[in-house]
Amino acid sequence: MMNELARLKPALVRELEVFLARATAEDSLVSNWTQDLMARLLDYATRGKMIRGALVSTGARIFTHEPGLLDDRMTTVCLRLGAAMELIQSLLLIHDDIMDQDDLRRGKPSVHTQYIHLVQGRKAGDPQRLGESLGICAGDVSGFLAFEILAALDLEPTLLRELFALTSHELTLVGLAQMSDVYNGGIAAEVGFEDIIQLYRYKTGRYTFSLPLMSGALCAGADQKCRQLLGDLGELFGIIFQIKDDDLGLFGSSERTGKPLGSDIRDDKKTLHRFFLFERADVSERKVFREIFGHRNASEKDVQLVLNRMEGLGVREHIDTELERYAEQARHLIAKLDQTTRWGRDTLEGLLAYNLERET
Amino acid sequence: MMNELARLKPALVRELEVFLARATAEDSLVSNWTQDLMARLLDYATRGKMIRGALVSTGARIFTHEPGLLDDRMTTVCLRLGAAMELIQSLLLIHDDIMDQDDLRRGKPSVHTQYIHLVQGRKAGDPQRLGESLGICAGDVSGFLAFEILAALDLEPTLLRELFALTSHELTLVGLAQMSDVYNGGIAAEVGFEDIIQLYRYKTGRYTFSLPLMSGALCAGADQKCRQLLGDLGELFGIIFQIKDDDLGLFGSSERTGKPLGSDIRDDKKTLHRFFLFERADVSERKVFREIFGHRNASEKDVQLVLNRMEGLGVREHIDTELERYAEQARHLIAKLDQTTRWGRDTLEGLLAYNLERET
Repeated sequence: MMNELARLKPALVRELEVFLARATAEDSLVSNWTQDLMARLLDYATRGKMIRGALVSTGARIFTHEPGLLDDRMTTVCLRLGAAMELIQSLLLIHDDIMDQDDLRRGKPSVHTQYIHLVQGRKAGDPQRLGESLGICAGDVSGFLAFEILAALDLEPTLLRELFALTSHELTLVGLAQMSDVYNGGIAAEVGFEDIIQLYRYKTGRYTFSLPLMSGALCAGADQKCRQLLGDLGELFGIIFQIKDDDLGLFGSSERTGKPLGSDIRDDKKTLHRFFLFERADVSERKVFREIFGHRNASEKDVQLVLNRMEGLGVREHIDTELERYAEQARHLIAKLDQTTRWGRDTLEGLLAYNLERET
Repeated sequence: MMNELARLKPALVRELEVFLARATAEDSLVSNWTQDLMARLLDYATRGKMIRGALVSTGARIFTHEPGLLDDRMTTVCLRLGAAMELIQSLLLIHDDIMDQDDLRRGKPSVHTQYIHLVQGRKAGDPQRLGESLGICAGDVSGFLAFEILAALDLEPTLLRELFALTSHELTLVGLAQMSDVYNGGIAAEVGFEDIIQLYRYKTGRYTFSLPLMSGALCAGADQKCRQLLGDLGELFGIIFQIKDDDLGLFGSSERTGKPLGSDIRDDKKTLHRFFLFERADVSERKVFREIFGHRNASEKDVQLVLNRMEGLGVREHIDTELERYAEQARHLIAKLDQTTRWGRDTLEGLLAYNLERET
């Protein structure tokens, strides 16, 4: 499945190149920053796996008459819409990096950090502030550009209206979920199981899976009921993806994940792992954990202690049970998608398997 | 003219109330922040003059068959679109306040400052950072909500597509112009005449005047040529509005403007006034000015010195000449708008006069 999605990356990159080159040409008179920003956005958006962009095509292909086959027009629509999804992803990540003060993203400085470096050489009064401000703008523009792409899609105007409604509403949901995430991360308070899952559902699920799949399905003419099912399925994929992501962040090799070992512990990320750990630990152990979680200079030994206790207290086993529970719900929804072809259901099963098994 | 625009405010407020109440009801499950944010956005968006929102109706009314008369459907469309413009304005102002570290907006704490206060009472590790992060999200959501309103307008789908294309492209331009503005403000370097005007044109003009007027005109069926003329006219209105705004900020009473006297000098705002002052001063005086502009604790005496020299060196007279030059260009464009009615041209003349004469 991953190969299937990765196969689309060059075409998505090409769409972004063409669109951003045109935007550069058309909007350069407006600001000295046009060319600079478009080049950074291209670099930034294309350095990821571009899964969200590729999933738009998947969402359309599972509803085509001939299994998996899109005609030329629909191929282009899905690629362009996919490029827009990647610009939306850039908006969210650029702002997220500012909020989390993350200097690195995908192996290179995050966008606001690039701007901090840029203005440091010039007579800036407060390079940090100025870099972050330019980053906020960069994120905003990335989102506006995504909507420009949507408006230019070769789609029936009535379908386009639905696509606009879907996209803007899903983004509202992501923005609201992001507020919870930011707040939970910035406050020294425990977060309950339901709140954690709610966040995985809306912040990860709806915009990583539901929105791309639903928007592709919409373009291919899938009805409201099918799209709703896909939306629900996307939430489950998101929960599984995020739990797996947390697990890889904690126990995966930092080479593969690109994150330093223990960073989620030092950042006090309110993961499901963390929740189960505190739930299973006794009072005295909890006290020890509270001294480790959220402390930027927690030692490697401290981090290792937490990881060992996660194993010892059966947190990972419990996590596996949870993953299987959500996977079972997902399989149930896939079976209910009767408007799709056998090929379509197999593809969604493949996506589920990829989420459950991925190692990076 | 101002009365005309102010007259629409209660109806615009009502549209926002209805829309945000519905969003609160529909999206409350997603996040604990939904209700909180919608209430803040309503308060924030409705505490301004809501000129941009009202101008949408103006843009439509100047193209109606019976001068100035909109039918019921179009009245509603323009009000809802106007409400969307105000949410877009909120997005831009909320982010702007974070970039400029402005604590106050429209006589109350700015949105991120409201959030800083809110989290200060709770166990936040870094209340400033957390408040700003919630503010970034709040701005993002405000923009997404605006697009949701657009997608639900009772308009021909083909018109709606054009409206989406127009709005998203104009926002891209504003975002790019904002990067220049932020950069100019954060760097101790001079900004040339053309760059200053370019900023007034795109940052103030296109989104305060061009976008609302053009979008209203589009809804009323005005053709591409007319909309282009209105766009150009909006740029000139913006330049005049911004120069006048700078003048009021420097020489107006702080009671009326709501800004402390001399704040633009202490913030080293790269105004046209400042440009002409430096152009007309000799080397030794420039050195004195450089010690005053951009120094947060410049004394009232220093500020007064700058203002006196602006008068003495004929900067204000020069500014008046410039204003008249742009006004002349605006009148020329209004005369060329032959698709509009006499009533329409008079209305635009009235808007021009308001921009030239306003005292608050």
